[in-house]
Amino acid sequence: MPDEEGHPTPAEMDLRTVLHALADPLRFGVIARFLREPEDAERTCAYFQLPVSKSTTSHHFKVMRESGLLRMVDNGNSRSVVLRRKELDTRFPGLLDLVVAERDAHTD
Amino acid sequence: MPDEEGHPTPAEMDLRTVLHALADPLRFGVIARFLREPEDAERTCAYFQLPVSKSTTSHHFKVMRESGLLRMVDNGNSRSVVLRRKELDTRFPGLLDLVVAERDAHTD
Repeated sequence: MPDEEGHPTPAEMDLRTVLHALADPLRFGVIARFLREPEDAERTCAYFQLPVSKSTTSHHFKVMRESGLLRMVDNGNSRSVVLRRKELDTRFPGLLDLVVAERDAHTD
Repeated sequence: MPDEEGHPTPAEMDLRTVLHALADPLRFGVIARFLREPEDAERTCAYFQLPVSKSTTSHHFKVMRESGLLRMVDNGNSRSVVLRRKELDTRFPGLLDLVVAERDAHTD
């Protein structure tokens, strides 16, 4: 069962759900940017400055959290998210590498 | 430029477009089933017996063709499709392996 924040365990992660989460350009951009950060970097949603409303931003992060891409970290007075890099690399080997390759192919 | 049938070259294939194509359960099922067939197997769209109308079936195959997953083969009096396996394996290493792993994890 996903936990109370909606995070699936690695075994519960579903490839199609993860592919759907990654297929959106804004969400793909968040994951691609996370992959430039130090491993286990915690970032607020605001950090990514998505060009959409706050509620749409929340929706995108919910989709990424519930698919298993991101984990929410509650620091008491603030919340941030972290890429579940190791778990994803184990559950879906090569998937994040494809994101990195595609990101770098389009970087000037 | 994609050819007149809308097939992108490998360099033109876009990861997000391919992920979107694969995120749909019916399309995922077609690709997963193709991955059980001999390499370069040609199959008609009807072969997959999608539980949707003929026009919806056509739409799904168009999405797979335009993303680069499938190539249409015109045999004169009939048309079939083939999985672009080698090209996909080269362009997006590991992606089709993830489809196989996910398919096999859910096979009884």
